[in-house]
Amino acid sequence: MDKIQTCNYCEKGENLDNLMSKIIELPYSIVYLFKNQQHHGRCIVAYKDHKTEYFQLNAEENAGLFADVSLTAQALYNIFHPTKINYATYGDLVPHIHVHVVPKYEGGPNWGTPWEEEPKKFLSDSEYQDLIRQIKTEIEKLQQDGMGK
Amino acid sequence: MDKIQTCNYCEKGENLDNLMSKIIELPYSIVYLFKNQQHHGRCIVAYKDHKTEYFQLNAEENAGLFADVSLTAQALYNIFHPTKINYATYGDLVPHIHVHVVPKYEGGPNWGTPWEEEPKKFLSDSEYQDLIRQIKTEIEKLQQDGMGK
Repeated sequence: MDKIQTCNYCEKGENLDNLMSKIIELPYSIVYLFKNQQHHGRCIVAYKDHKTEYFQLNAEENAGLFADVSLTAQALYNIFHPTKINYATYGDLVPHIHVHVVPKYEGGPNWGTPWEEEPKKFLSDSEYQDLIRQIKTEIEKLQQDGMGK
Repeated sequence: MDKIQTCNYCEKGENLDNLMSKIIELPYSIVYLFKNQQHHGRCIVAYKDHKTEYFQLNAEENAGLFADVSLTAQALYNIFHPTKINYATYGDLVPHIHVHVVPKYEGGPNWGTPWEEEPKKFLSDSEYQDLIRQIKTEIEKLQQDGMGK
């Protein structure tokens, strides 16, 4: 796959590690737990290859990416029971295709508006590991049930 | 298709008309021009049926929706040459699946951040009609070239 050495998602180095932790590799993407857990369960689904717009993917790749996003969202829904899930690809400054998957809770932060990054909420290492384990387990269970194929 | 009578996207009435204008119907969605044209070319791709999370779609429907989104983004890119396109599904309060497709321009509004709704920018009727015609024509051209199938 194409790699761009100045791209956080391609480098997979310290810049990325400061922001998120890998949960699982899916057919077309890697799922990360976002360290700012202001929105409980927030993840990022990053396309494996360095592409910057959906239309740079062929039909199979585009369908595959969004199958991965759907699978991730289903897992978050099953575990955390959010009221709604928000999904966004921005990337003006980090254009490698990545989808923010953000559980929203009625009465919780930014309910009814696009989410803000502040105030940030960080967890302990063991709390991150627990979330990663839960999400990974649920994704694998859904895959065994035939989702995301 | 399922319709919910209290949903703007299902009703297709005055509430929707105040916010956006139909451009074209695609296989899985309807593409609208957003009236607030602060970000030149901003559209919404609304799923035809009343579903509220991507994982409520089967694999074919999910792939079809994102083929429509990709086709729309390609058309906007070809016409307006944005630096980057942003894509988002929020919907805490209007949960019917719809994807904001927002061209972003380096040096323009909200470059490098998620977009804001303010300050709004409205156009004349003839300017809206001109944008609708351009986008519809480009989408149809791409379809004839085999995209979005």
